Amino acid sequence: MPAFEREILVRFRHCDAAGWVFYPRYFEMISDLVEDWLEEGLAAGAPGLFHRRKILTPSVHFTVDFLKPTHYGERLTFNLWAVKVGRTSCELRIEASRQRELRMRVRQVLVFISARTARATAIPARLIERMRRFSVDAQSASPKTRKAPSGAKE
Amino acid sequence: MPAFEREILVRFRHCDAAGWVFYPRYFEMISDLVEDWLEEGLAAGAPGLFHRRKILTPSVHFTVDFLKPTHYGERLTFNLWAVKVGRTSCELRIEASRQRELRMRVRQVLVFISARTARATAIPARLIERMRRFSVDAQSASPKTRKAPSGAKE
Amino acid sequence: MPAFEREILVRFRHCDAAGWVFYPRYFEMISDLVEDWLEEGLAAGAPGLFHRRKILTPSVHFTVDFLKPTHYGERLTFNLWAVKVGRTSCELRIEASRQRELRMRVRQVLVFISARTARATAIPARLIERMRRFSVDAQSASPKTRKAPSGAKE
Amino acid sequence: MPAFEREILVRFRHCDAAGWVFYPRYFEMISDLVEDWLEEGLAAGAPGLFHRRKILTPSVHFTVDFLKPTHYGERLTFNLWAVKVGRTSCELRIEASRQRELRMRVRQVLVFISARTARATAIPARLIERMRRFSVDAQSASPKTRKAPSGAKE
Repeated sequence: MPAFEREILVRFRHCDAAGWVFYPRYFEMISDLVEDWLEEGLAAGAPGLFHRRKILTPSVHFTVDFLKPTHYGERLTFNLWAVKVGRTSCELRIEASRQRELRMRVRQVLVFISARTARATAIPARLIERMRRFSVDAQSASPKTRKAPSGAKE
Repeated sequence: MPAFEREILVRFRHCDAAGWVFYPRYFEMISDLVEDWLEEGLAAGAPGLFHRRKILTPSVHFTVDFLKPTHYGERLTFNLWAVKVGRTSCELRIEASRQRELRMRVRQVLVFISARTARATAIPARLIERMRRFSVDAQSASPKTRKAPSGAKE
Repeated sequence: MPAFEREILVRFRHCDAAGWVFYPRYFEMISDLVEDWLEEGLAAGAPGLFHRRKILTPSVHFTVDFLKPTHYGERLTFNLWAVKVGRTSCELRIEASRQRELRMRVRQVLVFISARTARATAIPARLIERMRRFSVDAQSASPKTRKAPSGAKE
Repeated sequence: MPAFEREILVRFRHCDAAGWVFYPRYFEMISDLVEDWLEEGLAAGAPGLFHRRKILTPSVHFTVDFLKPTHYGERLTFNLWAVKVGRTSCELRIEASRQRELRMRVRQVLVFISARTARATAIPARLIERMRRFSVDAQSASPKTRKAPSGAKE
């Protein structure tokens, strides 16, 4: 199954005093990626979900491995798969690579909640349908697309 | 064993359009906390490590659970323990709570590297010694200090 | 007249690939400073203004001079004066120094608006009263406290 | 003379608890814009300047007016002109609009410095040449491209 793919240029603002991406900035990139996935991949409209449907998608879990540092000026290719899609939450797998070298591997769990009640709300049916286009069997995700790095911790 | 403890006020700049802490800002808080731990808890001097010894401490792993949202104006109490201390890396456990309600639970792995060679370097012996003051048996950390939330994923 | 004074430690997260404070991070420091002034200097409660009174204080103007770079690990002393206090807006003068060396000089204009209507709203009378404690004649602010740098643009 | 133009989508990460762009995030957008101008407009390579020539371009001055708030999901059109080009510094004018409504107006002064010596260094001749493509007489900049907002402060 295809991933949702976006390229992100590493900006001066992403980098720390070592000239490498500072980890909170990686999470800003992830936020942008998921927003684009909702907006363009699922045609849900991340601003639309928020503005019109008063749905928020806070993250409740992250497992992240930073495998290699990334420098100012490099272009990272992000891939996103929907590993599990539940009634009110979904689990994403995200990988960021530069020229096929894996730099970061992420497991993220999002929950759909109502901004009005702050309680979990069912993911709209048409979104669940579209999420399936990006789903993948968790175990096979990485091997299919690229060699798993040796010494991976998962 | 005592944790390294710091209070962090949730600022306007930490919060998103829902009025809750935006997750990349939590990682900025973690960065500040670890800096204070190196500087004050270990008397290592985070700027000192960087400026004088050319040692960097990049993060290579995070496991994070966000258990409850946190709002603008709340004060979070952060606790940090050194769960494992190796030759060139250490594993931290961090918890952020408000009035004993756990909001975030983190496992973070730091590696000590030389800024000159970008390779792992031994943690200075005096730091290893001081890290032990904040060490704790991983399994017992959370139960000792507060009830583990049900449905915890670890 | 006394300034509202706060010390801010330059964190790793503030610094760019040159090891200097990155200018968007200076504006984050200014945001924290103004928040503390509202909260502690004016006893207004910046979260209180926002949460209880639904008042926001967006900035509509900045004039900023960065006079010298500031490095990771340095402590900056921020001073804030209320140069002009109007019915719905106020003009602040902010200076950040390290050991009496001026690093940044700021003129900032804030407007008080209602979060409900997004229109300007009168600054509460008790706040105007308290702002006067931090007021200063604009022309004399800098000369009184320290020598104006040569080549200043204002 | 034509401006250097880029569109920037207002992201969730740019917005504060009021749902509007938080001003430090505007400065992050400005940083990206200037980086793109150096890289694409001047073919200088902002990473290239930094990595290969060890040239940094810190900002020494900003005058900024925020004329209207901008919301999550809106697209801003940024225009940049080189108002003055000196031997070691240049003055930029930047405007951000949504659908021809001016939201922010910026005057920014950049200095070219050597990362090795931290002193001002001559702007490379080929860059000065290319900057002229984006130059404009300061007074005429805004009127030519769009109506000046009433009540403008400059």
